[in-house]
Amino acid sequence: MIRAGVVGASGLAGGELVRLITQHPDLELTFLGGSSSIGRRPSELHPGLRVGHQLTVRPVTEATADEVDVLFLATPAPVSAELAALLADRVPALVDLSGAFRIRTPDLHDRWYPKARRRPDLAERFVYGVPELIGDRLKDAPLISLPGCYATAITLGLAPLTLGLGLDLGTVVVDGKSGSSGGGLHLRTADLHPYRSGAIAPYAPTGHRHAAEVADFLEHARPGSVTRLSMSAYGVSHVRGLLTSSYVLTDEAVDARELARAYLRFYRGKPFVRVRRHEETLIPVPDPQAVLGSNYADVTALYDEDGGRVVVLAALDNLVKGAAGQAVQAANLRFGLPEETGLTQQPVVPA
Amino acid sequence: MIRAGVVGASGLAGGELVRLITQHPDLELTFLGGSSSIGRRPSELHPGLRVGHQLTVRPVTEATADEVDVLFLATPAPVSAELAALLADRVPALVDLSGAFRIRTPDLHDRWYPKARRRPDLAERFVYGVPELIGDRLKDAPLISLPGCYATAITLGLAPLTLGLGLDLGTVVVDGKSGSSGGGLHLRTADLHPYRSGAIAPYAPTGHRHAAEVADFLEHARPGSVTRLSMSAYGVSHVRGLLTSSYVLTDEAVDARELARAYLRFYRGKPFVRVRRHEETLIPVPDPQAVLGSNYADVTALYDEDGGRVVVLAALDNLVKGAAGQAVQAANLRFGLPEETGLTQQPVVPA
Amino acid sequence: MIRAGVVGASGLAGGELVRLITQHPDLELTFLGGSSSIGRRPSELHPGLRVGHQLTVRPVTEATADEVDVLFLATPAPVSAELAALLADRVPALVDLSGAFRIRTPDLHDRWYPKARRRPDLAERFVYGVPELIGDRLKDAPLISLPGCYATAITLGLAPLTLGLGLDLGTVVVDGKSGSSGGGLHLRTADLHPYRSGAIAPYAPTGHRHAAEVADFLEHARPGSVTRLSMSAYGVSHVRGLLTSSYVLTDEAVDARELARAYLRFYRGKPFVRVRRHEETLIPVPDPQAVLGSNYADVTALYDEDGGRVVVLAALDNLVKGAAGQAVQAANLRFGLPEETGLTQQPVVPA
Amino acid sequence: MIRAGVVGASGLAGGELVRLITQHPDLELTFLGGSSSIGRRPSELHPGLRVGHQLTVRPVTEATADEVDVLFLATPAPVSAELAALLADRVPALVDLSGAFRIRTPDLHDRWYPKARRRPDLAERFVYGVPELIGDRLKDAPLISLPGCYATAITLGLAPLTLGLGLDLGTVVVDGKSGSSGGGLHLRTADLHPYRSGAIAPYAPTGHRHAAEVADFLEHARPGSVTRLSMSAYGVSHVRGLLTSSYVLTDEAVDARELARAYLRFYRGKPFVRVRRHEETLIPVPDPQAVLGSNYADVTALYDEDGGRVVVLAALDNLVKGAAGQAVQAANLRFGLPEETGLTQQPVVPA
Repeated sequence: MIRAGVVGASGLAGGELVRLITQHPDLELTFLGGSSSIGRRPSELHPGLRVGHQLTVRPVTEATADEVDVLFLATPAPVSAELAALLADRVPALVDLSGAFRIRTPDLHDRWYPKARRRPDLAERFVYGVPELIGDRLKDAPLISLPGCYATAITLGLAPLTLGLGLDLGTVVVDGKSGSSGGGLHLRTADLHPYRSGAIAPYAPTGHRHAAEVADFLEHARPGSVTRLSMSAYGVSHVRGLLTSSYVLTDEAVDARELARAYLRFYRGKPFVRVRRHEETLIPVPDPQAVLGSNYADVTALYDEDGGRVVVLAALDNLVKGAAGQAVQAANLRFGLPEETGLTQQPVVPA
Repeated sequence: MIRAGVVGASGLAGGELVRLITQHPDLELTFLGGSSSIGRRPSELHPGLRVGHQLTVRPVTEATADEVDVLFLATPAPVSAELAALLADRVPALVDLSGAFRIRTPDLHDRWYPKARRRPDLAERFVYGVPELIGDRLKDAPLISLPGCYATAITLGLAPLTLGLGLDLGTVVVDGKSGSSGGGLHLRTADLHPYRSGAIAPYAPTGHRHAAEVADFLEHARPGSVTRLSMSAYGVSHVRGLLTSSYVLTDEAVDARELARAYLRFYRGKPFVRVRRHEETLIPVPDPQAVLGSNYADVTALYDEDGGRVVVLAALDNLVKGAAGQAVQAANLRFGLPEETGLTQQPVVPA
Repeated sequence: MIRAGVVGASGLAGGELVRLITQHPDLELTFLGGSSSIGRRPSELHPGLRVGHQLTVRPVTEATADEVDVLFLATPAPVSAELAALLADRVPALVDLSGAFRIRTPDLHDRWYPKARRRPDLAERFVYGVPELIGDRLKDAPLISLPGCYATAITLGLAPLTLGLGLDLGTVVVDGKSGSSGGGLHLRTADLHPYRSGAIAPYAPTGHRHAAEVADFLEHARPGSVTRLSMSAYGVSHVRGLLTSSYVLTDEAVDARELARAYLRFYRGKPFVRVRRHEETLIPVPDPQAVLGSNYADVTALYDEDGGRVVVLAALDNLVKGAAGQAVQAANLRFGLPEETGLTQQPVVPA
Repeated sequence: MIRAGVVGASGLAGGELVRLITQHPDLELTFLGGSSSIGRRPSELHPGLRVGHQLTVRPVTEATADEVDVLFLATPAPVSAELAALLADRVPALVDLSGAFRIRTPDLHDRWYPKARRRPDLAERFVYGVPELIGDRLKDAPLISLPGCYATAITLGLAPLTLGLGLDLGTVVVDGKSGSSGGGLHLRTADLHPYRSGAIAPYAPTGHRHAAEVADFLEHARPGSVTRLSMSAYGVSHVRGLLTSSYVLTDEAVDARELARAYLRFYRGKPFVRVRRHEETLIPVPDPQAVLGSNYADVTALYDEDGGRVVVLAALDNLVKGAAGQAVQAANLRFGLPEETGLTQQPVVPA
């Protein structure tokens, strides 16, 4: 058994990690870390988790390293930056779910994450990326940084165009729609049920930092991939799951069937990415309800001749493929386990 | 009292017309028309309407003209086309909520509404438009065609830029998000509560006809307004209200304060359009929950320097400002009543 | 115009009062009181309210009395108790929406509202009750106390049996189901959208004080009405509206048609109570979605022969008929206006 | 591998069975039966299921018996009655999820299931019950009938009182609240999202047949358990999960701590029943959101001294513990597998 620890256990991603580790045949939960809920058990923090789990939340120290083989950091970026500095050389595997180590271009990092001070030596040792795109680099990687939930969806959607077909995408306008769990658990009036229910809340109409993260990744993966990538993000009236719509403007004609084939080809052999095709009838295009609770990402690309656009849609469960599930997937690859180990749960639909 | 009739009484827009006419001090409901619910009373068709209304649904005939001063057509486009041909010269005022007479460029109409056969003589007599933009032309107009719900929002959002500031907008990408009432009452599995709840359903990722409607209107109002306007539409997990995000690409710098002033100036004196400003705190940008049940449209425009975009947001209640309320507003203007008559209901928030 | 003030303007009931007063032809909003939002305008506190209202929230003092003809207290019970002591002899009409003056039996009051100290002289001057049941006593009443939202529904449901038919009800088990707006705006994790959405939360499985309030009222109205009335309350996954199910146990056979007639007879001429009958098809029994935004209460009673029960159902909008609307209704009666003045808004359905 | 077939594959319970069998280490899906979706694959019928499953829906015949070791019938009661008559002696294990074989008292069966004709010889061979209460009788049972979703919850809630403590319950009033998936996928206007969202729909205020089922089971398990058990059922505004509130009237004092201990004792060693205790804070009592997607049932009992009641609450996922999960649990017991095999999925919370 691989001993796993979770820091940030009281948050939504932390709770989801506990859920997935509990279901995992080769991971054993041996440490729960945090600062705000010291002494509490998972069942007190997350209503779904089984009564009876004996671990309680403790502060993270150097000694934490002795209790785990892999430590998942489900903490805010500044906390992750500090904990990584403390433990990077002590823990066999550190998997960070925050933005502390995502953006590799230094001044871009500093602009978008000013509170997570960048230590160049440390930052450069982190392997960052969507596992489907960097899987072989995760094998034996000691320090892993995972993309944000939106960034995962946008990147999975655009990769077949730019990394697969080798297209320069020019201008891309992204519209992201997410349920309320995407924003975490903040005690704000606008996040109370009466005001969040029924809302289409433009919470980040401009300036979402996942746009910078995606552009930075694509530029490193293949220079010239995207000229300008902008994003607006909206909170809609459900709890779990997000959809990204990436509008890729193009003046050239696109062969719709060739487009579909390119996506199928690009994700052949990737168990968690499902390319949605038209023959499936009830929900023919990506919709987050169809992935709920699972580690799947559903993607498709459609050509809009009138509009001069390729419409790229990607749906995933922000707490699973967008956070905890992807972290477990990365840990599987890190330790040489089959990618799907412990992640075979099918979507819970309808829910 | 002005005698008002509603055709399509069993649909959602029809029910909303009955609601608003019941609340209107100068309109009296004298006729209910339809084909599928002959003999039924409003309270049998719409659960909120008061028990006891004595009218029942009857077929529309030439004689219907004798019973009404204004007839609202809340019918599918092909039915509206037929009813208009029958009654255009018999009823003092005909207000059509369908797409039968919206697109004025003939071949564009035929492409998007192939089943609503266009009779040129009739089509050219209809006055079409958002009342805020064509108000004076509605006075005494016998034949009125109103924009679709999305088209109303997009047009109200873009008008201050193109009709107000006189800008040529170039490329505009529209992302529309609507609740389930936007799709009407169709008995389809995907529209049942279990599958529609929790969905972000890309029901028209390309090819929504409201895009053509808006482009056609703007081109007539001011040639060259928009070069290319594309649209994708999504169904999200609430019932009533929509938000349109119009991404206007631009390489020129925009003065954000000037932008805000232009919107305030353009809608000064328009009681139903509220330009949202940042000082309001709880919900600072347009969100359909803040207009529910009312005839308001909330709009704002934000400049995204990084993205090279103006982000234009517009929110409205698709059944009120997007349908029945706007129809009553148009009828008020038609009959010389104050624009707000019977439409002063404030939003029901939270709901 | 009657000058109206609202204290507790930042709460949900306070916001709803502002909405209804704005729509009312004979009331004018002249004062906004509160303690937590001093200096803010309604549009800053309630996202639906029109930008531009010039009043701001101020502390309540003795001088407040000079600015209003009627003062609505949408405040917690202890605050209402204090404000009533301060202003009872200074304001022509005081309408309290809290529990401070609802329970008339002194020791019962002290048990359920220990923090709202009872001043006997003041308590005895308040007129308390559902307006439909005590309407004539409201005329010229200076001090009015209104029932809680659940209490209103339960009382309207049971009154035709005990006050109409004169039955002694024996054992009554009440199950109340309410949306999230029923609990107010408290910054608690369990009230955040992710946890409140999808819940059926038994927030008061025993010991809800509205049960005591109803029993106390019925005992005063007709001694022996109810022997034992217990209640459990649940929060369900929508925002606005509640349903009460009162299970009246009985060993005697009941004539179902006679039961229906008794309800119709009891509420004849009461414009806000709609007795639901089976011939209406889409939603044949009380359901709060059918009253949303309106001052209606829908009631019905069904006989369950197998179960030896009469099932009494009552649905209302907890913020309107359960709070602000009922308060305006009481003020109308107080000032001799027709009961429906300003309250003719029809339900917004679906929403 | 145990070969498993599912009949009724296009329904919600059928889809859930496919999901759970796919996740099960010892079951292999070898047959999909149905009448309305012949030729279709699971991914065409259920949006969450993985594209690529090669089975398609076929009609059930005698030859079906050769393809399966266990056949799950997720069919309406009359269909189950017919299929059982056809296959009872040909399939090693038949697990029926319908009401065809639940009520053992013949005239009671005929009253509540008049369309599912009872064949005494067949009916008497079925083993019926909640697995926690009849587990040892399921070992090697060839014909298994499982309780309805509400019946499972009510029975699990009441069993510790009557079967554990040996109490005669007298009068029990049950109030059941369920999400929209509880009603199946019927194309009715009232089940469309706009009308079902926001509803508290009293769809069975009297006469729900699960009440008869529970009373019949308890009477067989321990004569005199319940004197009169009545039930009312409501549809609330979420999708998955139900809560039953059983109000047990009593004139005798109950020791609350003794009550809690009795529940813990009764369900000791039962992995799927979680007795909720007060020390857990976020959601201290049963709430279906805390079991979503899992096979857990959460129960608790509270004493209401004022009301003279024991309030028994039970929450479960109607498609898992209330249907497909319980069926897999029963099949596990039938084939001598550990009860939890394939059912260790933790709840997906929040969702």
